[in-house]
Amino acid sequence: MRIAVDLLGGDDAPAVVVDGALRAVRADPDLNLLLVGPSEAADAVIAALDPVDRARITVRPVRDAVRMSDHPSAAREASTVRDAVAAVRDGTADAMVSAGSTGATVTAAALGLGRWPTIRNPALVATLPAVGGPVVLLDVGGSLEPRAGILARHAVLGAAYAAVAHAIDAPRVGLLSVGTEAGKGDRARRTADPVLAAEPLPCNARYVGLVEGYDVSSGARADVVVTDGFTGNVLLKAVEGAYAMAGGPPAGGGVPRAAALLGVSGTVVVCHGAAVAADVASGIALAAHLWRHRATDQMAALLAGHAWKGHDHIIDTEVTTP
Amino acid sequence: MRIAVDLLGGDDAPAVVVDGALRAVRADPDLNLLLVGPSEAADAVIAALDPVDRARITVRPVRDAVRMSDHPSAAREASTVRDAVAAVRDGTADAMVSAGSTGATVTAAALGLGRWPTIRNPALVATLPAVGGPVVLLDVGGSLEPRAGILARHAVLGAAYAAVAHAIDAPRVGLLSVGTEAGKGDRARRTADPVLAAEPLPCNARYVGLVEGYDVSSGARADVVVTDGFTGNVLLKAVEGAYAMAGGPPAGGGVPRAAALLGVSGTVVVCHGAAVAADVASGIALAAHLWRHRATDQMAALLAGHAWKGHDHIIDTEVTTP
Repeated sequence: MRIAVDLLGGDDAPAVVVDGALRAVRADPDLNLLLVGPSEAADAVIAALDPVDRARITVRPVRDAVRMSDHPSAAREASTVRDAVAAVRDGTADAMVSAGSTGATVTAAALGLGRWPTIRNPALVATLPAVGGPVVLLDVGGSLEPRAGILARHAVLGAAYAAVAHAIDAPRVGLLSVGTEAGKGDRARRTADPVLAAEPLPCNARYVGLVEGYDVSSGARADVVVTDGFTGNVLLKAVEGAYAMAGGPPAGGGVPRAAALLGVSGTVVVCHGAAVAADVASGIALAAHLWRHRATDQMAALLAGHAWKGHDHIIDTEVTTP
Repeated sequence: MRIAVDLLGGDDAPAVVVDGALRAVRADPDLNLLLVGPSEAADAVIAALDPVDRARITVRPVRDAVRMSDHPSAAREASTVRDAVAAVRDGTADAMVSAGSTGATVTAAALGLGRWPTIRNPALVATLPAVGGPVVLLDVGGSLEPRAGILARHAVLGAAYAAVAHAIDAPRVGLLSVGTEAGKGDRARRTADPVLAAEPLPCNARYVGLVEGYDVSSGARADVVVTDGFTGNVLLKAVEGAYAMAGGPPAGGGVPRAAALLGVSGTVVVCHGAAVAADVASGIALAAHLWRHRATDQMAALLAGHAWKGHDHIIDTEVTTP
């Protein structure tokens, strides 16, 4: 197993990525890394490892990077993120991780790996620790507009991800709104609720209707919480801020700073731009976990066999990047 | 000072409202209450008080209530919430508190007290404890659609509320989005950002641009966080859920379960439908605080003198209730 790592992605790259890569390699003896970036940064990782572990690192030297302030289309040009994606496409790596601009990673992955049929905008999915077990939240930044068809697609993707990546049996899927009674919410949610109720869900998942902000941390009502990428991103950061305010994350773990990109033909993990070394390491560990479970292939197979009801809506969406 | 309390508002009314009223009266010796609801519930409050305090309670017997499942327009009919509003209008009470259906309270208040000029949809504002001092968040459920003109109005209302209700000098006002760089966010936020930048703000407030979910709990970037009622409501509940997950609210206090209704000609506080006695008591205390500071009158005066830039947008909005 080899994970490609974008050495120049993130606010504090390459330093935190170097540290994160070291942590990941030391934590998982079966992990090999392909470091994509400047040779001197890659050399820092290799030099810090025990000689016996150095063979686990390979390097693809790339000097250019997409900066956080660049437009996502900059990922079309030669860059660490584009080359990390290329390594997944050509089979040199099994998965990739970047803490760079999310929009650039989504663009590079969609162009380089291709999108699943019926998926125009890949979704970002994050798993939060909750009282009742893990809660899968999506989207957290891929598609910012809350169209009904997109939300129905998130429901299908989230159900498959919960089953495949987290072994949640018959996941309960809820639509995030301002109350649990039918009819609660803005126009987008009121439109989406019956669309989700009519959408067949894979993996014996069932739609449980509207859920609220609490449910993301409690897990009492749903295993999968569906929302648009704007709301999901704001919520994820609000929960992270609340943990900081409360004196630190709960014992079960804090808010993940790594999210899986669903809808492209390859395993891609996006870390937060402000990721620290531990976040990068957890992103690499997530990519390794998804690869070990063949999560991307399993999900693609589930989606390929899915009889979309909301398909009319889905092909009508626009490409947006956060 | 006399606060009208809707005895039949809330999931666990009248029991929790009776308990909350008792707590509020005992905590504040200058507080008088007008209890609006069944005589037997009001009698339970009176009987539990020391004889010397019983004169602080008056009663308006009303048997009908708007239930949580009723349409908000039910507040047009005879009901505890309508009569509590009427008490504010006729001067029998200085402010009112209800833990009933938010939509019903907004409807009753808008009809019974009238709206400020240029305010079609009253806004719900909540104040959260944050590392850097209180953070004013609005809307948390009044207007669910994120139109630019509504967000600009929230910025003006929030700035005035921060200054008047919390004595925050020259409040910093931010627009909640998925990143802080200009251009981050969904279409609504990208449209609203320049509108907010162009809107003059009262009380020496200044617009600081886009802020993120973290900022609601940190207070580092803004004293006032502006968003639509859908996002605000979801975020507030997510933070509350996170505190529960983290083992309890921080020492500085948890998420408020009472919000002030801004934009109607009277002081109205809405408590969460699942309010417990302590929440009802804090809602009554908030109403008393706002009345003592003449917050509603001061804000109405500030708004009356406000030279709206976003006014064209504002009068074009629709009435929605959460």
